[in-house]
Amino acid sequence: MSDDTPAAADTSRPRQDGDPAGPIHRDIPDGDNRERLICRDCGFIHYQNPVIVVGAVASWQDGGAPSGERILLCRRAIEPRTGFWTLPAGYLELHETTEAGAIRETWEEAQARISIDRLLAVYNVPRLSQVQTIYQATLLSPDIAPGEESLEVGLFAWDVIPWEEIAFPTVRWALHQHRSVIGQSEFAPFGNPIAESADYF
Amino acid sequence: MSDDTPAAADTSRPRQDGDPAGPIHRDIPDGDNRERLICRDCGFIHYQNPVIVVGAVASWQDGGAPSGERILLCRRAIEPRTGFWTLPAGYLELHETTEAGAIRETWEEAQARISIDRLLAVYNVPRLSQVQTIYQATLLSPDIAPGEESLEVGLFAWDVIPWEEIAFPTVRWALHQHRSVIGQSEFAPFGNPIAESADYF
Repeated sequence: MSDDTPAAADTSRPRQDGDPAGPIHRDIPDGDNRERLICRDCGFIHYQNPVIVVGAVASWQDGGAPSGERILLCRRAIEPRTGFWTLPAGYLELHETTEAGAIRETWEEAQARISIDRLLAVYNVPRLSQVQTIYQATLLSPDIAPGEESLEVGLFAWDVIPWEEIAFPTVRWALHQHRSVIGQSEFAPFGNPIAESADYF
Repeated sequence: MSDDTPAAADTSRPRQDGDPAGPIHRDIPDGDNRERLICRDCGFIHYQNPVIVVGAVASWQDGGAPSGERILLCRRAIEPRTGFWTLPAGYLELHETTEAGAIRETWEEAQARISIDRLLAVYNVPRLSQVQTIYQATLLSPDIAPGEESLEVGLFAWDVIPWEEIAFPTVRWALHQHRSVIGQSEFAPFGNPIAESADYF
């Protein structure tokens, strides 16, 4: 047993008013083999698991030619990386499939309707305990508008993507990997590029 | 606001000894748009997220010929589906990549060392809020032994896989999908077969 959280409480006496509360004490529950966070008020064990981020590289074809492809990007209204551009993406919710989550996030962040084409990439961001599943998708119309978490949204031809203002490495990876398989309908999904960090600071 | 958990407490008075404890009250936190589980003792908000299951179809080649392939299966020592056969698989841990998790689970459940070859499948089990990433992998040796969560482990040629005693639909799917791409090194990963349920009861 150990107790090394920043807000570690004195564990030798019952909790008193003013003590830190919630599942903040590290201990190994019965029948487990790892330390978990436990609340000494209510006994709750907070099993922490990695989270799943779902998102889409959503395209609109001007005139139908691949050269006319424009990609949906959202300028972030929230931390982290407020003001930078990202793909529509966010946390998968309970009882939701990864495809449904990508469709929902694209609606919430860009008020855009898409159909999922295929899995583009599975990224691991272990520092943040994130697994990201990013799909290739087709916009059902070019009608887009910023949702609550976006300052603005846009459909960008490749040459005018704001590369210097991209929010996260995974967004840059997904855009380039998407570009590398244009016209292919069957390919193994990409992962993290070798030797590149997913960290953005 | 609503409060429809089975153990819903009387919310009109402070908690008293004997009342149910822990984050069991449903309410929408400030700045959120969904109901979350909140503890009225300690104020903790329990954000529930889908979980990621990582696993492997791990092969050993007798004599090196594809026809000599044997696949690692584990007979479950734990609920659910105790006594049934499964692939080595389990919950991804914090700060772990999906590939590392599949390697760890194969070690924990079958004391077997593998190298990851490629992503075989991404399954969604929305009823259980699970996303499963299943890899094709190669056993580094045929030395295997049951871990704590396995009653026994075995290397099975295709014709002797105990199909009637497979624990979960996803295990059956992964085995058949693995079989369908033997010899291929580049393919789009599989998903849930259309119109098949991932439920096992």
